[in-house]
Amino acid sequence: MESRKIVIIGGVAAGMKTACRLRRLDADVSITAIDRTSDISYGACPLPYYIEGLFENLDEVRRTPVGVLRDEIFFKNAKGFDTLTRTEATAINRDQKTIRVRNLDSGEQQDLPYDILVLATGNTPIVPKLPGIELNGVVALKTMKQAQQIDTMAKTAKSAVIVGGGLIGLEVAEALIHRGIKVTLLEMKDQIMATALDFGIASLVHREMRKHGVDMRLSESLQRIEGSGKVERVVTEHGSYSADLVLIAIGVRPVVDLAQDADIDLGVTGAIAVNEQMQTSDPCIYAVGDCVESNDIISGRKVYVPLGSTANKHGRVAANNISGQPERFPGILGSMAVKVFDISVARTGLSAEDALLNGYDAVSIRTSAPDIAHLYPGSKPIVIKLVADRKTRKLLGAQIVGPGVVDKRIDVIVSALSMGATVDQLAQFDLSYAPPFATAMDAILQCANALRNKMDGLVDSMSPAEVCQRLEQGEDIFLLDVRSPAEFDEVRISGATLIPLGALRNRLDEVPRDRLVAPFCKLSMRGFEAQIVLQQAGFTNVRYIEGGIVAWPYELEM
Amino acid sequence: MESRKIVIIGGVAAGMKTACRLRRLDADVSITAIDRTSDISYGACPLPYYIEGLFENLDEVRRTPVGVLRDEIFFKNAKGFDTLTRTEATAINRDQKTIRVRNLDSGEQQDLPYDILVLATGNTPIVPKLPGIELNGVVALKTMKQAQQIDTMAKTAKSAVIVGGGLIGLEVAEALIHRGIKVTLLEMKDQIMATALDFGIASLVHREMRKHGVDMRLSESLQRIEGSGKVERVVTEHGSYSADLVLIAIGVRPVVDLAQDADIDLGVTGAIAVNEQMQTSDPCIYAVGDCVESNDIISGRKVYVPLGSTANKHGRVAANNISGQPERFPGILGSMAVKVFDISVARTGLSAEDALLNGYDAVSIRTSAPDIAHLYPGSKPIVIKLVADRKTRKLLGAQIVGPGVVDKRIDVIVSALSMGATVDQLAQFDLSYAPPFATAMDAILQCANALRNKMDGLVDSMSPAEVCQRLEQGEDIFLLDVRSPAEFDEVRISGATLIPLGALRNRLDEVPRDRLVAPFCKLSMRGFEAQIVLQQAGFTNVRYIEGGIVAWPYELEM
Repeated sequence: MESRKIVIIGGVAAGMKTACRLRRLDADVSITAIDRTSDISYGACPLPYYIEGLFENLDEVRRTPVGVLRDEIFFKNAKGFDTLTRTEATAINRDQKTIRVRNLDSGEQQDLPYDILVLATGNTPIVPKLPGIELNGVVALKTMKQAQQIDTMAKTAKSAVIVGGGLIGLEVAEALIHRGIKVTLLEMKDQIMATALDFGIASLVHREMRKHGVDMRLSESLQRIEGSGKVERVVTEHGSYSADLVLIAIGVRPVVDLAQDADIDLGVTGAIAVNEQMQTSDPCIYAVGDCVESNDIISGRKVYVPLGSTANKHGRVAANNISGQPERFPGILGSMAVKVFDISVARTGLSAEDALLNGYDAVSIRTSAPDIAHLYPGSKPIVIKLVADRKTRKLLGAQIVGPGVVDKRIDVIVSALSMGATVDQLAQFDLSYAPPFATAMDAILQCANALRNKMDGLVDSMSPAEVCQRLEQGEDIFLLDVRSPAEFDEVRISGATLIPLGALRNRLDEVPRDRLVAPFCKLSMRGFEAQIVLQQAGFTNVRYIEGGIVAWPYELEM
Repeated sequence: MESRKIVIIGGVAAGMKTACRLRRLDADVSITAIDRTSDISYGACPLPYYIEGLFENLDEVRRTPVGVLRDEIFFKNAKGFDTLTRTEATAINRDQKTIRVRNLDSGEQQDLPYDILVLATGNTPIVPKLPGIELNGVVALKTMKQAQQIDTMAKTAKSAVIVGGGLIGLEVAEALIHRGIKVTLLEMKDQIMATALDFGIASLVHREMRKHGVDMRLSESLQRIEGSGKVERVVTEHGSYSADLVLIAIGVRPVVDLAQDADIDLGVTGAIAVNEQMQTSDPCIYAVGDCVESNDIISGRKVYVPLGSTANKHGRVAANNISGQPERFPGILGSMAVKVFDISVARTGLSAEDALLNGYDAVSIRTSAPDIAHLYPGSKPIVIKLVADRKTRKLLGAQIVGPGVVDKRIDVIVSALSMGATVDQLAQFDLSYAPPFATAMDAILQCANALRNKMDGLVDSMSPAEVCQRLEQGEDIFLLDVRSPAEFDEVRISGATLIPLGALRNRLDEVPRDRLVAPFCKLSMRGFEAQIVLQQAGFTNVRYIEGGIVAWPYELEM
């Protein structure tokens, strides 16, 4: 009996993972992976760090942790399956169960028969059709070749414009700054990572970018690129920026032509639709990785969030199902993390805005806290925003930013969200504690308790954005700074009145009873305490400023 | 109407947290905290780091993150309640609802009436009644005064003996080594942290301690301490160790005399028994912090694991219940983390041994993996041991050790355990990924998948301990090293045969079919692959060595 034939189109993360796992589960099945390029099984996520110069040999992105190159020979000898590189799939014949492939070097075409076909066709950068987009020096970053190109250009470039404030835009901006290049970042929305972060959190990232010299041009969009042969400048509706290098990083779209031509269903996001077994509308065809859309675990909606972490999971699930071991992929939370100069920012689940759009009665809070015991060397603050549903008290999402350890806390929330935890359950998690790793009440537990206090009506509070908006609208808010005089001297919010928390109970007559009082401190804890003191003294119009000075994304007096 | 009186005995973490929260919830209640010492509200966990010299002013352990000293005045002015220091509670009169207190300076006694009493009497170090224990230079570490004492002695001490390989013993051993003192660590069990870690994980800690010069004396117990006035040497059943300083760190016991004298129920562990509302057998008396026993969430058994993180949670729960806001404390997982020189070790839930003792059909696995993308600077390995129940597939516990980031992964498992996750659910967590923070499949997800492979019968494997034991018993195991020749040259397990994974399919005739074959590599992945290759080639007696060279705690050839 002839062995079952599995053909996989796409030889990067999801495709190769599917092939490897398939072989482990089944010695006899015939497995062939094909890829248009010869740079198979490379990691795209580290490419910005190559440009930054953090590792020297670009091939590293194709090596295992112990340095073995993941080429066709490796996959043949160590993993036990065949890979055809420089081979393009041009059509799927679902009736005959064959795919037409063409060797890009010889031009030779052939039909490969399959019993099961796996589409792992990935994504491709979106490149807008604007004047000058074809000029030399205008690139996207997706392939190893493009990384090499940018690295070469960066050797002589004096100024660069990055179009798009997503993950790749931020990472490459940092890389080029470290290489001494003047960087302008152009983002048509009023914030970076607009679909991932709420404005207040994004604003703290903007501050960090500016601090390190990135010229942040928000709410400004690319009109055309100018130059003779080679890029010289970028023109927006507001100005013109000289550039030897332009990175187009406005997003990616799934590669779905093959699927579409074969009448395989696409989803609402435009990516390939799959069921929980990673099967497309044709049960003999699976799809994995960056070409498929995902189920958002919280909202239940379809989303398109292509990430290497998801691609790997897809590969395992698809291979299991193909081998007759049923497994379902539950979906994603849209978890992301990115280092931006000296801070990290991470998010998971729904943002406050998304939660409202999805019909939740969402309550959110920001807190600031040290990441580890404040007296242990290296302790740094983080700002946490937590979103929960008022009715069920279930967590909906989180965003964390700061110089301290952010990824650990986001992964705690990822775990909590994956299991449907309430904010009350989170607050009781027995997280590990020792001074080098956490505070006795970890920052994330403090934030959960702060959110419970807000949900339970013990206190009310305002985001920095709300405070700022009200002030701009001319509202006469009494900004009550309850820090120490020494802290006040160092840095303060313009127009605030200083009454240290310890003195507040005796100086209540200095606080107006006819206006909104907004107490705050460095983090948020004394501000919260001050609100309690005022409420207990009969003040009825008090709302502390969440996250204090550390989370305040606007100007400060120094 | 007179206000309700709350009296709290014990002014450190749990007591003060209870008082602070109570005041926030209720402006009118009368709150008095009393403490025997004047060092109230200090953090005991950072004391070893003071001895190490990581911060200069001991008072820091009593300061808030912004530097305010948490003394009586702070609690009065900022937190709004009274604290009586140097005041000892000598008896509880439950009928009259009063406690008898004595001022330790004036000797004056009085009866304080209470409506609700909160016991936060903490723990005290266990000091064995052995000859010489009273000598100068023999100390425990619990109070600020003792930390000061050890710091002073360390200025001149040449050698120290630490009795007990628990958290404090390990931390102080490191502190004293950093101060140039010769350190011997005496532990009567055959491993450090015996109730918290399995032997194989503990062995990796032993290696790190030895590497940094700690003379590890395991399975050896203190017999007597000798010296004239001042300690000179420590004598065990195996030898004698000179010492200018002896730290007794064999454990702590709850302080329960007051409760016991008042006929308040103690639990099976000897600590005060409380319900989920933190109420003792007398509904008007609550108990919180290190004097109470906890419910182990996984096993349902009562345990005594006093930790600052738990104490803080207790305080909030007790205060809520006292104020009429019902809340329950669900229990603990025994989560712990400790830094030991250049590695970290953390654990949560049940160890493999405990799981078996508790009647689970426990399956466990060890994996080794880089903590972040291997090509990102600073990537370091970690070894993860995961324990799950074969029947329900629920996670039971984890232990993680290594130079890489350990605390993040243990907190993911804490979150998973808190919500009753299965290993299959864990494997699908959408953890955040970017090269500076994780690998595309995070180490903890890799470990979950490895455990699934084992539970599903895809492969079988052995712990390093099992391999070692079988070899010692004379079993003729074929140790198959599937790394590269370069890796083999650098370091290897004695007696192993090298066949690189990529060559294995063509060199199967070099592998015996009549003996147990144990493939391994640096981490565990190629070892696992090799097992698949062998099984698919008809080998029936193959079990890879979990965690590879990185998790191998025994001697290696270099």
